[in-house]
Parts: sequence; C-alpha cells; structure tokens
Amino acid sequence: MSITAKFEKLGVDAAPGQEVRLGAVAGARMIGEPLSGHPVDFSHGDVDAHKPAPGAFEAFEAGVQAGGAQAYTEYRGAMAIRETLAEQLAAFTGAPVDARDRMIVTPGTQGALFLAVATTVARGDKVAIVQPDYFANRKLVDFFEGEMVPVQMHYAEAKSGAGLDLTTLEEAFRAGAKVFLFSNPNNPAGVVYSADEIGRIAALAGRYGATVIVDQLYSRLRYAGYDYTHLRAQKIDADNVVTIMGPSKTESLSGYRLGVAFGAAAVIERMEKLQAIVSLRAPGYCQAVLNTWFAEPEGWMAARIAAHQAIRDDLVALFRDIDGCSVREPGAGSYLFPELPELSIAPGDFVTALREQAGVTVTPGTEFSPHSGRSVRLNFSQDHAASVAAVKRLAVLVERYRV
Amino acid sequence: MSITAKFEKLGVDAAPGQEVRLGAVAGARMIGEPLSGHPVDFSHGDVDAHKPAPGAFEAFEAGVQAGGAQAYTEYRGAMAIRETLAEQLAAFTGAPVDARDRMIVTPGTQGALFLAVATTVARGDKVAIVQPDYFANRKLVDFFEGEMVPVQMHYAEAKSGAGLDLTTLEEAFRAGAKVFLFSNPNNPAGVVYSADEIGRIAALAGRYGATVIVDQLYSRLRYAGYDYTHLRAQKIDADNVVTIMGPSKTESLSGYRLGVAFGAAAVIERMEKLQAIVSLRAPGYCQAVLNTWFAEPEGWMAARIAAHQAIRDDLVALFRDIDGCSVREPGAGSYLFPELPELSIAPGDFVTALREQAGVTVTPGTEFSPHSGRSVRLNFSQDHAASVAAVKRLAVLVERYRV
Repeated sequence: MSITAKFEKLGVDAAPGQEVRLGAVAGARMIGEPLSGHPVDFSHGDVDAHKPAPGAFEAFEAGVQAGGAQAYTEYRGAMAIRETLAEQLAAFTGAPVDARDRMIVTPGTQGALFLAVATTVARGDKVAIVQPDYFANRKLVDFFEGEMVPVQMHYAEAKSGAGLDLTTLEEAFRAGAKVFLFSNPNNPAGVVYSADEIGRIAALAGRYGATVIVDQLYSRLRYAGYDYTHLRAQKIDADNVVTIMGPSKTESLSGYRLGVAFGAAAVIERMEKLQAIVSLRAPGYCQAVLNTWFAEPEGWMAARIAAHQAIRDDLVALFRDIDGCSVREPGAGSYLFPELPELSIAPGDFVTALREQAGVTVTPGTEFSPHSGRSVRLNFSQDHAASVAAVKRLAVLVERYRV
Repeated sequence: MSITAKFEKLGVDAAPGQEVRLGAVAGARMIGEPLSGHPVDFSHGDVDAHKPAPGAFEAFEAGVQAGGAQAYTEYRGAMAIRETLAEQLAAFTGAPVDARDRMIVTPGTQGALFLAVATTVARGDKVAIVQPDYFANRKLVDFFEGEMVPVQMHYAEAKSGAGLDLTTLEEAFRAGAKVFLFSNPNNPAGVVYSADEIGRIAALAGRYGATVIVDQLYSRLRYAGYDYTHLRAQKIDADNVVTIMGPSKTESLSGYRLGVAFGAAAVIERMEKLQAIVSLRAPGYCQAVLNTWFAEPEGWMAARIAAHQAIRDDLVALFRDIDGCSVREPGAGSYLFPELPELSIAPGDFVTALREQAGVTVTPGTEFSPHSGRSVRLNFSQDHAASVAAVKRLAVLVERYRV
C-alpha cells in the first residue's frame, strides 16, 4: 500500500479536538437562527470545571527540582515511580503488578495503546475489535495492516453488562484472531462489562491463546449500583493480558499526558523497545505527577464521582425527554452515547450545525462504529449548568431538523 | 515477519540511558582495580550541570494555569504557540515557516523523527541513511520495513564539512531511494555539513524528487570557526524537506520532551494523522515551554556555547594525548566520537568495563554504524571538571586493555 493510500484511511477530520481545522458548513443547509449560550465542547472533559486533585503541580515541580534524574529515566519510566505505582495498581485491580519487568509508563494512554497494538499485531493478523469502541482502536489495526474482525456490543438492548456478542468473539478467535482489544468501561457508551462477560473473555483468551489488551482508562470513575471486574484478576494467564490505564480525564491530569501499561512481560519489553524510537520516554518531569495518582486526599474521589453522577443523571433525563431518542445510563466514566431520532440532514451535518448554531461540540457516532451513524458521543465531565443548557440547545436543534 | 523477529532487530540494550537494565559483565574479563572518581554518564547531557534558561518552569506553570485550553490543543500543538515559534524558526533557518499547515509539535524530537519516517517510508522503500548517524534512524527504517541504503560519511578524513560520500548518495537516489534522513550537526561525530555539501544534497533531492528529513537538533550550539547551512533555505522545493528541531539538550529542556517538525505540508498533515493514534499530542502543559525557546535572555546562548566549547577543547586534547586515538573536533553540538586504539577485549566489554571500573558511561560506536566498532560516543554537556576527570580515567583503562 502506498503511504498516501495508507494515510487516507487514517482521517482525523472528525476526531475529537480537531474541529478547529474544519471549515464552516455550507450555510444553505442550516435551519433557523443561532442559539445563544455558553459554548460547551463535549469532545473532551473540561479540566477547568473539574480541577485536578491537590498536589499534582507540586509533584511536577519536585520533578523539575530533581533535575537530570527525573529528566532522563529508563525508557519505561523511573523505577521508583513504577514501584510506588505498582502497589497502588495491584490493590486497585486485585492482582500483583511487577514494577520492574511488567510495567511501562507512556506518553498518555494513547501512547500505551499504540505501543500495545504495534507490539502484538503483525501485518495480516486478525484482531477482534468491539463496535462501538474507542475510535483509535480500529485505526491502529489499520495502520499496522492487521485485519479487523468486528464484534458487536449490543449495549442498547442489554439489561446488564455491556452486551458483548460473545459468540462472535469466539468465532473471531476460532478464525485465528490472536488479539482482542477493548475498553472497559466502554468508550463511547459508558457501559461496564459484567463479571460474567469478563470471566468468559478470560476463558476464551485462555482457550485460544489470545492476547487481550484492555483499556481501563475510566475504571476509577464508577457510579453507584455498578460493579466492576478486572480482567487481570480473573483466571487468565498473566502473559495473555495487557491492562492500560492513566491519570487522565477522571483526575483532570490529561494535560500532563501520562499513561501506564502493565501485564505480559514479553509485550511490555517489546513496548519499551518501540517506545525508544517513538518518543524515547514519557515526559521526564511529568512522570513525577504519577506519585499523586491513587494517592488523592480522603473523600476526593468520592466527591468527583458524585459530581459526575449528578451531571450524568440530568443529561440522561434530558435525552430521554427527546422523542425518539434512546440512551443507556453509563455505569462508569464520563461518556454518554445517545442515539438521536431520524433527522432531515446527514449526521455529520447535524454535528456541524450543532457546533455552529448552538456552540455545542460532540463527536459523531461513526467515529466509533459504522453502525452508530445516528449516535453522538458527549464527554460530560463539564460544568454542570453549562452542560445542561447545552443539551437543551441540542434538543431544540433536534426538533428543527427532525424528519 | 513475525512480531518477535521484528522486535529482535530493535534491540535497546546498548542504547543510551538503558544501562540500568544491563547485568554486570563477567568479572573475569576485567583487569585491575576500580578507579575512584565522580561517575559521569556521557550517554546524555547533564541538565544539572547546565541549567535551563530562566523562565522555562514559569512558562510551564502558566500553561497549567491556562487549564483546559493548554491541556487540549490541536494534535499538532497550540496555534498561538506555533505562530510565535514559526517566526523564531524562520529567522533562525532563513526561510519562511507556515505555522498553520507546515508545522507540528511532537513529544520530543524523537517523536518528530518517528512520525516523519512513518509518513514517508512504506514497506520496501529504499531510504538513504548516513553511517555513522543517530542510532534511531536505521531502527526506524527497519521498523517500517524499509530498505536501508547506507551512505558513508568520511568525517575522520574530511578536511572540512562532514565528508559525506555524495557519489553514493546519488547512486542511492538513482537506485530509487525516495527518502534521505540525516542529522546536521552529525550525531555522533559532531561534524557540520559544509555549504557545498548541503547545496549538493538540495540539488540531488530536486533532481530525483526525494524527500529529505534533516534532524537539526543541535544546530544552535555552534562553535567559533564553523559555519552552518540550513538545507531548507537552499534552492530546494519546500515540499521536499522536513526539518526537525527541539528545545532539548542545548537548552537543558529535555525533561519537558518537546520537538517540532516543519516543512512539506503533505508530510506534516500525515504526521498529525499519525500522532493522533501514537500519542494524541505533545504534552499540553509542556508545550507552553516552547514560548521561552529562542527567547532566552541576551547573552545566554553565547555563554552556553562558550562553556561547551571549553569542555570540548579539554576533552579533545585528552583524547589526542592517547596514543593511537583519533578524534575530530566537533563543530557543533555536544557529541564527541573518538576512535580508540586496538584493545585486547571486545568493544562492548570495554564499554562495560569503563562503566563498572571507572564510573564512566559512554555509548558504543556500533549503535551508530557497523563500521564504528572502535569508537565511543560521549555527550560532553557535563560538569567540566568531572568530565575531564572521567576522560582521564578512560585513558587509564585504555592503557590497561591496550593490545
């Protein structure tokens, strides 16, 4: 494949955060006047509305003061930081973490995902990918010229759990898929996999000798009434699982761009080899911020969860008030993935109209699945009042453009 | 190629900074007692010995205060930062820089190199690579399954310039190489390409329609008596050149991990698409430190150059005092690449003995060229007195192990 052809598949025009590079839509397709209100960018969380836990900046400052020792760490991150973190992650996930040989610090969780896929997927390899799931997953498989085997997640219909089609997943493994990559809680739908689903994924991985890469980025932000099962703590060969996390949107630390991957030693070792030529290491000074992760003051996380649960509840109610709109209540994370009623304009044009006429930025559902054209993703880690007002404006526009 | 085979080619065991992961060498091969002295790690610069310019940390702090706007920038970096930087880089390199469409901010210059190679080299493509040159260059070509066409740089024999074998370079282009990747000043040898060499590279790129990726990371740290020619300011199609720089070792800002690539619009656009799935963006808050780059106080850069020139002169003299050792005086940057006399142990074992017996860490020459087995690379951006003492210990060990 030529470089040009390869990169044409890697479009980022509709990717969250890139709206600034888009031109205006042809005004002719727009109906009615602009709606006034405080603009809300639901394509990512608002770290100004939800501040980081105390101590993050001070930890960074201490890293700068430490000088060369913090600027130049092992490519996989400073050992002292990895050791402290390994204990926290072991307690959180319920299984031991080996700081020396089974953990790597990366530039953001995106960095960890990239390295994990790059080091497990060779050209032509089959990779099971959930639909819908985080948009980069399929792009990574495309980039490494793997063959994506889609596995549907019937989140809307499922009464509990994520609604993963486990029969198709097993078929994918039987057909030769050696890697299964998924996010839990799911991004974009916010649904959490049940203990039964995770147990069956573990059993399938064991039976077929597949590597499972699980992106648990939002697994700390869990709402009342939802249990969470860590795949790595189930009956599964530790060399078959790579878990990815990071202090990001939940903790409002995304500006430091930190991620961590832990699990299969052989994969982690390859990830470090590749990191050496991709970015050398996670930012030296930023790594020091990891010392504050999982070490927030008593009650801080509970308050963060409560604040997000309150926003979630208001937005879910607003979407359910829109005739013909369906949305499943997220069990964890800060994503909401409502399906809108049928509209008179193309979904992409509606997203543009929403941004231009209502100051509301959302991410089109097609970024996450070709079958999610009528859905949009909202990151509701926002100012509470502003996000409620923004979804009300969205509801007005839905009526304007309704078929 | 299997994933395992692919990554076996990507060894990082001898890579700078990874020494901590190496076991001890068999003591039997060692001769004599350890030499005492302050340990010096010449594998990278010492940001404690040469402090960053004032204002870097404060710029970072301002980035954190800016909050969401700085945490979430375009994938290619914040526009306001790119605009300011574009003016500085245009003035420095002598040709206009388009901040909007021809520039990207990356996690370190390593990030820029990775993206530049990934977006210009397809599987099987021929890529001209200088020997010796930065060790990641050939690894990147390997990783993307390109075919490396080596071009020798006869730096030791050259009276001026870098001593690039331009005949071989033209042969490489004639044989179909579409990309030429090189560092100027050269890493590891510290030599600067002459105006004539750069002019001929520009002419060849034009004649054969090749893309030239030039890593100018150390181009600000230039010593008295050496001229520097910016490729992008020569007679060359702007769409055929990508220039890579970064505030790193010269400015002691490497702990912030920032790089920038500017040039060919189509390549930069592909680089951003790929960055979206590799690391999303350069660290949000760290980007703010770019506001201090090329904006150091009057006289700061001159003082930094003078301090490094003094260290360079002392170390070059010490190496020239070793019988059978040759070294070319670096014209820019902080690397020294002496060729040692013939020793009774393998070069890799000497590097280990040096580290274990003398507390002196250097990088083996074979990281940079298969023909540089007798050379070692030193980054002399160190404490002046400690580096002089360390090279004296190195000289003692050379005598111990001399054939």
